Amino acid sequence: MNKQNHLSNIRVVLSHTTHPGNIGAAARAMKTMGLRHLYLINPRHFPDPQTNAMAAGADDILANAVVCASIDEALQGVVYTVGMTARLRDISIEVKTPREAMPLVVQEAQEQQVALLFGTEMSGLTNEETGRSQLLVNIPANPEFSSLNLAASVQVVAYELSVAAQSFAPNVAQMQPAKHEQVEGYFAHLEKTLFEIGFFTTQNPSRMMQRLRRLYARARLEADEVNILRGILSVTTEYNARLKNRYKQEEEQ
Amino acid sequence: MNKQNHLSNIRVVLSHTTHPGNIGAAARAMKTMGLRHLYLINPRHFPDPQTNAMAAGADDILANAVVCASIDEALQGVVYTVGMTARLRDISIEVKTPREAMPLVVQEAQEQQVALLFGTEMSGLTNEETGRSQLLVNIPANPEFSSLNLAASVQVVAYELSVAAQSFAPNVAQMQPAKHEQVEGYFAHLEKTLFEIGFFTTQNPSRMMQRLRRLYARARLEADEVNILRGILSVTTEYNARLKNRYKQEEEQ
Repeated sequence: MNKQNHLSNIRVVLSHTTHPGNIGAAARAMKTMGLRHLYLINPRHFPDPQTNAMAAGADDILANAVVCASIDEALQGVVYTVGMTARLRDISIEVKTPREAMPLVVQEAQEQQVALLFGTEMSGLTNEETGRSQLLVNIPANPEFSSLNLAASVQVVAYELSVAAQSFAPNVAQMQPAKHEQVEGYFAHLEKTLFEIGFFTTQNPSRMMQRLRRLYARARLEADEVNILRGILSVTTEYNARLKNRYKQEEEQ
Repeated sequence: MNKQNHLSNIRVVLSHTTHPGNIGAAARAMKTMGLRHLYLINPRHFPDPQTNAMAAGADDILANAVVCASIDEALQGVVYTVGMTARLRDISIEVKTPREAMPLVVQEAQEQQVALLFGTEMSGLTNEETGRSQLLVNIPANPEFSSLNLAASVQVVAYELSVAAQSFAPNVAQMQPAKHEQVEGYFAHLEKTLFEIGFFTTQNPSRMMQRLRRLYARARLEADEVNILRGILSVTTEYNARLKNRYKQEEEQ
C-alpha cells in the first residue's frame, strides 16, 4: 500500500473557524503534505476571497471542501478521531505528541476513515468535540507562548503525518473499529437507559457520560461490541417491562 | 544544559522577505517553539502594522529583530549556517531532512552561534546564500505542490528543533488502574446481572463473557471506573425492587 492510499482516508476537520485566511493557509499546508480532504464545521466566512488568496494554489482543496452543520455530520463514517488540543484537561482522554500519534493515524487510515479535528482559533475544541475524539494530540510548545496559529498547527501535524506515512510498514489489522455514528448510537442508548433505570438520580449525567466516553474511547469499541453492549441495554429495558407486567399480574391475583 | 540554552544560540535569518505578514507569522512560529532571535536581511517592509498583526503577541521578537543590509552582516559570529531549500541543487551541499538535521543544530548550538537561513517567498535562497551554508535542509513535501508558506516552513523547522532540544512529553494525568480483584469483582457482578435480566437466554454465557473481558482488557479499567460500572449494575437490579414497590403502591391507592 503506498503513501497516497493512507493519506486519502484522512480528513482535516476545522470547527467554527473565525478567520477565512486561516482556512486557506490550512488548505495550503494540507496540500504541501499530500492531504486533500477538508471538512469545515460552520465556518464564519466561506467561501471568501481571503481564503483563496492564502491557499496560494491549493484551490482544489477549497473547491472540494465539505461544509457541515455539526460535528457529527463532519465525522460521518469516521472510525478514529484525533482532536488537537493546546491544553491538558481534567478528564483527559489519552494525550500524545504528534510524533507519537501520527504513526497510529497512518495505521488506522490504512483501511478506515480518520479525522484530524481542529477547534477554533480562540478557544480550541469544545468538551463535546473532545468527547468525540479517541485520542488527543498536543503540539509541545513554549509554555509561555503556546498559541500556534491554526494553519501552523495543521502544517506541523500534516508534516508529521507525511513523515510517518513515508516510513510506514503496514501491520496486520487486528480489530474492526466501530464507526463514529455506531459509537454515538451506543452512547445515546446508554444515556437513555441510565436515565430510565434511575442511575442519574444520584449522578451528574453529563459528567458521568464524559467518564464513560473516556473509558470506551480507550477501549476503541468494535462494531460487534457495540451490538453486544446495545443488546445488554435492550434486554435491561425489556426485563423491566416484563417485571412490570409480572408485578401487575401479582397484584391482580 | 537545558533546552533554553541551546535555543538561545540559534537565530532565524529571513532574507529579503516580501510580505510583511510572513515576518510576523514567522516570529509567532519561532516564539511558540522557544526561539527568540530574528534577523532580517533587507526586508521589503519593516516595521509594518501587518507584521505585528500576524505576530499575535510575539511582538518582543519583532522589537528585538536585527535588520541587516547583507547576508554577511546577518551571519556575523555564526559558526554553523543551515540553509532551507525547497529544491535540490546542481552543486549540492549536503541536504538533510529537518528530522535528521535538527539534532545536529542543537549539538552545534550548545556552545556556538547557529543560523537557520530562509530565502524569499518566490525563489528561496540565492546561490550566494547557499554557498554560505554548511548544511541544507529540505522539508519533504508533496512533489506536485511543494511550496510551503515561509512562516509554515519556520514553524516546521522550529518545531523539529524544539523536539530535538528536549524530548518533551506532555504531563498527562497518570491513570490508576484497578487491581485484579476489583476487575474480577466487576466481571462477576456483570455476569450475575446479565443472567438476572435474561441476557443469556439467547447468548452463550462463557463466550459472551470472554468478549466482554476482551473489551474491558483493552480499556485498562481504572478503580473508579469499576465503581461506576458496578453502580450501573446495582441500579439495574435495584430498579426492579423499587419498581415492584412503586407498582404495589399504585395498586393500593
